[in-house]
Amino acid sequence: MTAGQPQSIHLQTAGPPTSDTRIWIGPGLLAEAGRRLFSPSGRFLLVSPPSASDPAAAIRLALGDRLIADIALDDREESKNFQTVLGIADRALGAGLRRDDAFVAVGGGVTSDVTGFAAAILLRGVAWNAVPTTTGAMADAAIGGKTGVDHPAGKNLLGAFHPPRVVLIDPRAASSLPERDFRAGLVEAFKAAWIADVALSRRATDSLDRILAREEEALLDLLAGAARVKASIVASDPQDRGRRRLLNFGHTLGHAVEAAGGFRTLRHGEAVAWGILAALEVSKRRCGLPDPDAEGIRADLARLGPFPEPERDPRELEPYLARDKKATVKGIAAVLLESVGRARVVESVPASEWLAAAAIMSLK
Amino acid sequence: MTAGQPQSIHLQTAGPPTSDTRIWIGPGLLAEAGRRLFSPSGRFLLVSPPSASDPAAAIRLALGDRLIADIALDDREESKNFQTVLGIADRALGAGLRRDDAFVAVGGGVTSDVTGFAAAILLRGVAWNAVPTTTGAMADAAIGGKTGVDHPAGKNLLGAFHPPRVVLIDPRAASSLPERDFRAGLVEAFKAAWIADVALSRRATDSLDRILAREEEALLDLLAGAARVKASIVASDPQDRGRRRLLNFGHTLGHAVEAAGGFRTLRHGEAVAWGILAALEVSKRRCGLPDPDAEGIRADLARLGPFPEPERDPRELEPYLARDKKATVKGIAAVLLESVGRARVVESVPASEWLAAAAIMSLK
Repeated sequence: MTAGQPQSIHLQTAGPPTSDTRIWIGPGLLAEAGRRLFSPSGRFLLVSPPSASDPAAAIRLALGDRLIADIALDDREESKNFQTVLGIADRALGAGLRRDDAFVAVGGGVTSDVTGFAAAILLRGVAWNAVPTTTGAMADAAIGGKTGVDHPAGKNLLGAFHPPRVVLIDPRAASSLPERDFRAGLVEAFKAAWIADVALSRRATDSLDRILAREEEALLDLLAGAARVKASIVASDPQDRGRRRLLNFGHTLGHAVEAAGGFRTLRHGEAVAWGILAALEVSKRRCGLPDPDAEGIRADLARLGPFPEPERDPRELEPYLARDKKATVKGIAAVLLESVGRARVVESVPASEWLAAAAIMSLK
Repeated sequence: MTAGQPQSIHLQTAGPPTSDTRIWIGPGLLAEAGRRLFSPSGRFLLVSPPSASDPAAAIRLALGDRLIADIALDDREESKNFQTVLGIADRALGAGLRRDDAFVAVGGGVTSDVTGFAAAILLRGVAWNAVPTTTGAMADAAIGGKTGVDHPAGKNLLGAFHPPRVVLIDPRAASSLPERDFRAGLVEAFKAAWIADVALSRRATDSLDRILAREEEALLDLLAGAARVKASIVASDPQDRGRRRLLNFGHTLGHAVEAAGGFRTLRHGEAVAWGILAALEVSKRRCGLPDPDAEGIRADLARLGPFPEPERDPRELEPYLARDKKATVKGIAAVLLESVGRARVVESVPASEWLAAAAIMSLK
């Protein structure tokens, strides 16, 4: 089982912050980890949750005795906190971590967020690699350098910009992913198409049955397309001051419903799906998003769903909106759609408008 | 009480990582904090320990109702840990911290290290200002962007590069500093002269009595000179890969004796003094440091001391040397002197050589 000719994206930014990330995409890449992953010293520290045991075994095999630590991670959303980062730090320092060693995060978004953050603050920064094993992490979380953990006051409130040096996207790494996680992660992949690539969006809609059946070619087209959208946007705005905020489409209300559910009711991708449904309502009012475009997105989301009902009570949601990292003294910056493939940032949409959209958003 | 015409240094690096720090130096600057400190939103969060209550009061007065949080810090070395950073994070998020707000750290090196680290990881990075109140922080800790906390395995093993936007050096902020801290901090200021500015070193030796009597003009000359040395070296190597390592003169064995004493026996500057004494021995052997140069440094240190006896037992010191952040698979990079004002990095001096120097280093 070899990778044949994998696709490759080089994500490089002059900064601040600087990025120099090589993204490899192709079936069978796990077996090539030994020559694809990056470490200045040649030594690696593996971090992986139980749910990624198969791909982690492949990485372990590929790295052999170049592995100086093998760290088990509890990757539930409620464990995405400072204490978990400290646990990785303890293990890494106990194994004699040096500045020229590198981490390998094998898992979903929580694994790459937490491992990347540990890599960012250990010895003031060591290199890391991402091997995403969920559709959400392949399309989104592993690319772009945002790392971090949650705080009781909100999601990702503690973190760092610290891009991985290599991202290895092998769709086979997601082959044993539970159906619900598989579908939730695809929301992020579709999101990339909706904000910036109308052709990708059409292809993905047309092949959605084959994608849901996990047919390799259709899945690869969507994941690679999403990775290209994300890399291109990140490259144009590494520090999340402008264009990069487009990637937050669906995330303003999405974060709020996810937090209001205590990070247990909804998967991240499911929360983003609800956030997108709310953003469609605001987009129609503020950006003239045509009804057929909104209906097309809603129809795709319905095929990816159903998703559990979110919290809609304004009293529950409002405190989380106020804590949004995109909130400044001026209000919350909103990502809205003008049409499929064309997103833009509208400064300071008041929280009340999001809460009104939350009351009426619907998958049907 | 006004500042007259303060000196100013602009420390700017293209990265990685990028720096854009304005350093103001002059007596009476505390009163001008309202127009000297930086915050995109105009809002500030003050962090200060009880020992800095007088300068903190001056900052509080200068900022008035632009202060949205007033956070008390336990700045003992044993509290320089992740939990203390989390405490600041809790308070800041509880006060409604936004991305465009800024911290003000008023205190010594622990205060700026911990506050800068909190600023680095809150919302993936907010701005901060440093108002050093100790001689050590004025000469060294507040400048250059290294932030972080200790770990049971060693000093500063968790941290980030996150330079303050403004550093306000007002020697009057150190006027109530206890004698022992005042003297220990001056070791870092002399260190700057010894590695890179022989003229400054001569002036400081000549005026050492007046510096120890805290005469404003003599003290300001040494502190401003040290700040200029540090800023110039940091600008030439922001990421600590090359020339910046010169600033670690005295820190290899210094960190080890400080850690072996549990961070209680010795002040940081006192540990660095012992580290410099050890480095003089290694420098004489490896770099031909002339005896008169070594004796001159030793004489200055003797006038700054006496310092408590350090741990010298190789079995106690060796584990800490092995954990040094500057250790790679090749060994520990050593900063040595060729002559006063000329330092260089010698790659991979074995730990055994440092341990031998520790056995014979002496202040007399």
